[in-house]
Amino acid sequence: MSSQIPDSHRDLLDGPIIAALATLMPNGDPQVTPVWCSYDGTHIIVNATIERQKAKNMAERPRVTIMVFDPQDQFRWLEVRGVVEEITAEGGGESMNELSLLYTGKPRRYGIEVPPREVSERLLYKIAPTRVNFAG
Amino acid sequence: MSSQIPDSHRDLLDGPIIAALATLMPNGDPQVTPVWCSYDGTHIIVNATIERQKAKNMAERPRVTIMVFDPQDQFRWLEVRGVVEEITAEGGGESMNELSLLYTGKPRRYGIEVPPREVSERLLYKIAPTRVNFAG
Repeated sequence: MSSQIPDSHRDLLDGPIIAALATLMPNGDPQVTPVWCSYDGTHIIVNATIERQKAKNMAERPRVTIMVFDPQDQFRWLEVRGVVEEITAEGGGESMNELSLLYTGKPRRYGIEVPPREVSERLLYKIAPTRVNFAG
Repeated sequence: MSSQIPDSHRDLLDGPIIAALATLMPNGDPQVTPVWCSYDGTHIIVNATIERQKAKNMAERPRVTIMVFDPQDQFRWLEVRGVVEEITAEGGGESMNELSLLYTGKPRRYGIEVPPREVSERLLYKIAPTRVNFAG
């Protein structure tokens, strides 16, 4: 059992690949949503506005799992189980814009119509890997 | 809250799209793996060989979640939470071959090298939706 992300699969976290984020509902059921993510060498980082169910789940039950597979090779995939170690508003807007540029080619996901309230409610969730599985 | 799969998103379960299957580990952590799936109008059907962790999880903790997104439109996705209602060996081999043809263009995932033992251990897991979320 390793908590290291292998170099051979790190590209799956760097590229504009949609990841599946599993969180736990209050009753323990898994919730799975598609997310954008990035990896800073220590944490996998996702972001969410605080009113979303996944955000509530991550704040209250920090054990989460991210899975991403290679769109060009369905048998090459990476699963990272981990713990949300930090939740911060700092950099949330910038991170979202960077991810938006990476994933959509547009620097702002919601364009200039974003009300300041929404921007302030977007948080970063930093996930420390505790167990990593991969194939391919 | 609906447990109906909307017609608008049913294609996501019919096409050769890799789904994310979340199951629950013995300690309650979510496990997420990429899977092939199909939908018969009542159940979402996945298959697994019984020695796999996801198979053990589904047998012991039947609350699971499947999420699939449109590879052509990342904002169109479907999440189905449900319960594994039936586990059967009947049709497991045939289902695997059908899915293999759909997903890879090859009628047998493992070709003629498959030992009979492996074939006999491949089971179908039939998931009854209890809650459906979608977007796009």
